[in-house]
Amino acid sequence: MNTKQLEVQGMTCGHCESAVKGALQELTGVENVDVHLDSGKVEVTFKEGTVTEADMKEAIEEQGYDVVT
Amino acid sequence: MNTKQLEVQGMTCGHCESAVKGALQELTGVENVDVHLDSGKVEVTFKEGTVTEADMKEAIEEQGYDVVT
Repeated sequence: MNTKQLEVQGMTCGHCESAVKGALQELTGVENVDVHLDSGKVEVTFKEGTVTEADMKEAIEEQGYDVVT
Repeated sequence: MNTKQLEVQGMTCGHCESAVKGALQELTGVENVDVHLDSGKVEVTFKEGTVTEADMKEAIEEQGYDVVT
């Protein structure tokens, strides 16, 4: 299992948290998603060799948020 | 037709706007809802003698937001 931390801009409330979390959890290989609204940090735990960082960024950006790193 | 303006706290993004708008539009008698995120103002247009201000406040509070006035 692997963990990737992303920094996301524009998440302001619980609805935003749910939107980002839900989009990431739909990706094959993603096991867990932790969203920290105050810091904008998103931690994704996933099976190695399945989902890529690019996939994660795309899923977040499709929800209307910007990924900084 | 009548219009009531409410001041709502805690709406931060488009999801919040949709939640408040959707809850108010479900009330019988409500014809139109305008949400101004920046000011927190919500304008509800409704048929007189149908929905009450208390109904509106309840619908908003059920979504997790506070009505100031």
